[in-house]
Amino acid sequence: MYRDKIRVLDCTIRDGGLINKHDFDHKFVRAVYKALSQAGVDYIEMGYKNSRRLFSSEEFGAWKFCDDEDLKKVTDGIESNAKISVMVDVGRVDLDDVKPASQSPVDMIRVASYVKDIDKAIHMTNHFHEKGYETTINIMAISRDKGPELDEAVHQIEQESKILVAYIVDSFGSLYQESVEDLVNRFRKYLKTKEVGFHGHNHQQLAFGNTIEAIIHGANFLDGTVYGIGRAAGNCPIELLVGFLKNPKFDIRPILDLISKEFIPLREKIEWGYIIPYAISGMMNEHPRTAMALRNSDKKDEYREFFDSLANPMVH
Amino acid sequence: MYRDKIRVLDCTIRDGGLINKHDFDHKFVRAVYKALSQAGVDYIEMGYKNSRRLFSSEEFGAWKFCDDEDLKKVTDGIESNAKISVMVDVGRVDLDDVKPASQSPVDMIRVASYVKDIDKAIHMTNHFHEKGYETTINIMAISRDKGPELDEAVHQIEQESKILVAYIVDSFGSLYQESVEDLVNRFRKYLKTKEVGFHGHNHQQLAFGNTIEAIIHGANFLDGTVYGIGRAAGNCPIELLVGFLKNPKFDIRPILDLISKEFIPLREKIEWGYIIPYAISGMMNEHPRTAMALRNSDKKDEYREFFDSLANPMVH
Repeated sequence: MYRDKIRVLDCTIRDGGLINKHDFDHKFVRAVYKALSQAGVDYIEMGYKNSRRLFSSEEFGAWKFCDDEDLKKVTDGIESNAKISVMVDVGRVDLDDVKPASQSPVDMIRVASYVKDIDKAIHMTNHFHEKGYETTINIMAISRDKGPELDEAVHQIEQESKILVAYIVDSFGSLYQESVEDLVNRFRKYLKTKEVGFHGHNHQQLAFGNTIEAIIHGANFLDGTVYGIGRAAGNCPIELLVGFLKNPKFDIRPILDLISKEFIPLREKIEWGYIIPYAISGMMNEHPRTAMALRNSDKKDEYREFFDSLANPMVH
Repeated sequence: MYRDKIRVLDCTIRDGGLINKHDFDHKFVRAVYKALSQAGVDYIEMGYKNSRRLFSSEEFGAWKFCDDEDLKKVTDGIESNAKISVMVDVGRVDLDDVKPASQSPVDMIRVASYVKDIDKAIHMTNHFHEKGYETTINIMAISRDKGPELDEAVHQIEQESKILVAYIVDSFGSLYQESVEDLVNRFRKYLKTKEVGFHGHNHQQLAFGNTIEAIIHGANFLDGTVYGIGRAAGNCPIELLVGFLKNPKFDIRPILDLISKEFIPLREKIEWGYIIPYAISGMMNEHPRTAMALRNSDKKDEYREFFDSLANPMVH
């Protein structure tokens, strides 16, 4: 599938960091940035830009905050055409902490928002846009907000924001292809001056398939992570996405090396991927937090009981 | 997705047996048969019916041969509405070894065939049909045979065979949704008196997504395996398929128990699932045999070299 406007965004450190409190060491992040740059990925998301007043630097690693100094340490001296992205959550960033783009290594700021917070997200992205950044709004947990409130939010984004991309985020890994088709079509109906993006979660092994589905229907910004790392079941494996897109600007081989050298050992230490409680969460259209708690308990492989607790929450 | 004509076929023992020479012990197979029966799966495929003149009983386990006595041992006393299926390969079965259906525990015989062997497959299925079995033809490696020869084969199946189902088999795990849509539509164009089936492989994490795609376009016979077990990357996880189909006749919980008790420990002993060399085979539309050999070598995690060897076979 070749389409000139397609952009691939890697969020390995940002979404992967959700399983280790963003505590990747600088050497690892440098290796990731280098390999993805060599692979020709368009954007590399290095973490969250959270307020240090809300999160403790003792508890969380550098990529929860993405200070410019840390970003420079892991990118300096590496040849790259990739733009650098960071994510912010509504209500978790001090807008005044963000310098103008001309003084920062960051090119893009993505605002993660629920439908209910769309006014705030628009305000934030317009603020960042004024400072010179590319911006996106990533609508989280969209599988819970598929009614008319979503149409209204997307329409409002088109009217009031200056973002480059509005993202469909399948936070619970519960979308099937038909919903992806419907959502992309609805986004495109309203977004005449902005692109549609897709960020999948792999709870039901559908992150890659749903990403292809989004591409078919016109989404041009696509998220992936190396070896699918990410919260719970993880994300769309970027190596599969690059293998699918036939654009000669991409080279899968540096990513393959990175998996061999860094991600096979890492997977022995932290857990993501196809794991039954996450699949159940996806089927049930639930946040994976209860499944993540289960995986940290001594009932980690008691799947039937977990299923029943979600299927019949009143009796458990 | 509810459609009355949909049938789910589990081939855990048959396709999973390809990674352990069909050497599952009777206790394990009995547990699988019992759980799948309780789950309401329509067909359970217990293995291959190969000729003992072609394969050694020393080298291979019972499910390479599926003698009636073995089938009875693992099914006797278990309440089940599931039909029993076995698979045969063109040229690897003695037709005379197969008793009439009325004297056998087997209900369905599936013939795996390449497009080039379709005449033989039709002959075999007609023979089994005469003996009272339900039959299918499963067209293997279909991603290599998508040209007019496939139309001709499917047309011939409609004209000359008495099968119940013609299956699309993505042996290399290389199909994307658009090809699945095209194939199902082509099959349906010719098959006016037979059903279309889909058997996915999970090399690119698309077995489940492609199975949904096949359902959307009208395939009614769907293969899956418990926890996705199967050769190389494995198959469509039947727990995901049952979770997707909203037919109340299915109950996912016995399958969840089976995974907890049997498949989590089994996965520690034998390997299947998302593994990069299988993903590369899928992208390249290649048989996974070279990837399987790699996984048994000391270069099992040297992905770049493996990629280059497939991408540029002449220089390696």
